[in-house]
Amino acid sequence: MNAAARLSREGNHSIKFSIITTDADARLGRITTERGVINTPSFMPVGTNATVKSMSPDEMKGLGAEILLSNTYHLYLRPGHEIIRQVGGLHKFMKWDGPLLTDSGGFQVFSLSPLRKISDRGVTFRSHLDGSTHFLTPELVMEIQGALGSDIAMVFDECTPYPATREYALNSLRLTTGWAARCLKARVDGGRQALFAIVQGGIYRDLRRQSAEELVEMDFDGYAIGGLSVGEPKGLMHETVNYTARLLPRHKPRYLMGIGDLLDVLEAVAAGVDMFDCVMPTRNARNGTLFTGRGRISIKREEFRSDPSPLDPDCGCYTCRNFSRAYLRHLFMSREILSMRLNTLHNLHFYLEFFRKMRKAIEQGRFSSFRKAQTPVLRNNFHE
Amino acid sequence: MNAAARLSREGNHSIKFSIITTDADARLGRITTERGVINTPSFMPVGTNATVKSMSPDEMKGLGAEILLSNTYHLYLRPGHEIIRQVGGLHKFMKWDGPLLTDSGGFQVFSLSPLRKISDRGVTFRSHLDGSTHFLTPELVMEIQGALGSDIAMVFDECTPYPATREYALNSLRLTTGWAARCLKARVDGGRQALFAIVQGGIYRDLRRQSAEELVEMDFDGYAIGGLSVGEPKGLMHETVNYTARLLPRHKPRYLMGIGDLLDVLEAVAAGVDMFDCVMPTRNARNGTLFTGRGRISIKREEFRSDPSPLDPDCGCYTCRNFSRAYLRHLFMSREILSMRLNTLHNLHFYLEFFRKMRKAIEQGRFSSFRKAQTPVLRNNFHE
Repeated sequence: MNAAARLSREGNHSIKFSIITTDADARLGRITTERGVINTPSFMPVGTNATVKSMSPDEMKGLGAEILLSNTYHLYLRPGHEIIRQVGGLHKFMKWDGPLLTDSGGFQVFSLSPLRKISDRGVTFRSHLDGSTHFLTPELVMEIQGALGSDIAMVFDECTPYPATREYALNSLRLTTGWAARCLKARVDGGRQALFAIVQGGIYRDLRRQSAEELVEMDFDGYAIGGLSVGEPKGLMHETVNYTARLLPRHKPRYLMGIGDLLDVLEAVAAGVDMFDCVMPTRNARNGTLFTGRGRISIKREEFRSDPSPLDPDCGCYTCRNFSRAYLRHLFMSREILSMRLNTLHNLHFYLEFFRKMRKAIEQGRFSSFRKAQTPVLRNNFHE
Repeated sequence: MNAAARLSREGNHSIKFSIITTDADARLGRITTERGVINTPSFMPVGTNATVKSMSPDEMKGLGAEILLSNTYHLYLRPGHEIIRQVGGLHKFMKWDGPLLTDSGGFQVFSLSPLRKISDRGVTFRSHLDGSTHFLTPELVMEIQGALGSDIAMVFDECTPYPATREYALNSLRLTTGWAARCLKARVDGGRQALFAIVQGGIYRDLRRQSAEELVEMDFDGYAIGGLSVGEPKGLMHETVNYTARLLPRHKPRYLMGIGDLLDVLEAVAAGVDMFDCVMPTRNARNGTLFTGRGRISIKREEFRSDPSPLDPDCGCYTCRNFSRAYLRHLFMSREILSMRLNTLHNLHFYLEFFRKMRKAIEQGRFSSFRKAQTPVLRNNFHE
């Protein structure tokens, strides 16, 4: 472990993280990568299959997305990482020249595979696509992410389920820590690809502490908080985020995985978290659920049949500048592809704009009042 | 009929058609509308439900589409023409400020409705959406198209099936001619909306002549050839187009409805046809069938798995400039929405570019050699 840690410390870190200012525990930061700057707190739209569903890469640029997330698990199964390597890596494949983060597949194995068998060596699982059997190891996960060529790779982890006994969580944690060390060792490019560790430990404070301390000792380029939003009560999730974020090194980016309810995001940013990803804006958009400055809208509702007003009169996105609720409802009811496009564009704009406002508020030292002011709007969007 | 004819002659014709040059019987023309110029021969992409499937109106502009077609039948059933009227008409609804042509619904009643009952008064049919019963008359069809506010409306017609006895075709023709007169009478806007008649008559030359003569007498703004590509052999279709086109007035636009095989288009343009519409480029795109300068490509084929080259190296569309066959195959296999977008964009570009080339060839008096040169490529695209 020490050898690995030393190797990492001596490597060429491909990312640089600097904190521009803080507001209580909230941080305004900047991650500099070879492919561009990521302003934090940052929202990473999810491009599971090397595409943010329904969007073109140009549109993602236009929305101001600074980094996209893609899924190692999905790309390993289809089209296969060797194919992406052959055609020049994931950036070229999906024509996105900005930073990319690849998830390690640990969560997908946990949530998508109908069968998984975990051992120290790795995880045997069944493909959700064709039922074929695969064996993922930390080494293979690093190999895949190396082939994809993402700017930030994630270590392979076991996502501890909820509920889990302390014993299960401890065992899961040991696996994850051991795998993290192996991932660090398996880095192939001398550190050009940043590598983030994932803190597990379920809802057990002492296990979260143990996980964080062991991983911090190994000196990763960033730290994620994993294993949350897997069924635990909100209060417990917030508590765990609050507790865990403070265990992480100040000078490294902190990433809360898979959390996208913006009330949770506010809570996490207040605790010092810097990075987020979630399918909420994109998945909800495809289901016709749209976030607005006046609360959530289900576009299929009868009342919008002949409503000539824009979805959100205060929104400046392409959808709101150009189309009426009546048209958006019509497209949705007709199951037109343009419906998913216009809805996704709007919801992503809502998210990315929210993050821009959040950063402004931290910059101006008014994050606490921003949070208070946003809470009722977000309640109407996320907890109706 | 004479009263109606007079009314039409005295109305403000919203379109002006001029022939710039001819090359044998092929015509290079220009339709001037209040919303813009349509260069002919013109291809009209189909936007059935007030959207060209998967495309944004901006993208259609970018592709160089000069006119879109939308469907009266579909928009009458959903969302309903009164709703579109309330929100300011179809252009505003779908945010397309260029010219629009609306099909009258005759063909859709024929091809989509599980039940139809035809009388002199009109057609009773069942909605393909919910099975509800509706009664379309020439007057209602004009009312609907008036509410939509298209630049070019089509008369309500009965699409004569194939095969049909002479007796059936004659009766169908009588209906269509009578309905055309009623449509002309039912114009509500004093001629601001152009109105095209539809020549029927099946495969019977004398009936096509009778139909054309009766309709020409009524003086419409343009003339369509309908009732083709409904199952008749290609040779018979070409013969009918050739024969019928020459019966139509020289100084009015001629529109061959629903034909999109570009070999048929070349044949029709040679016979003096000016306007076309077809779902071939868009529907094929969504099924992964792509037209290229080297023949048709089915993007799902195994051989493209790791092919880094563009779909069509000679194509300048967004898809070909940015993405590899490997990526397009991956998107298609993953049923990603972006697959349908990129494919549709390419196929529409292929069509619109083909029409641009065709116009250039007529302009330069080399349509015949253009046709000869294009034939092998088109065979590889349309008759493999």
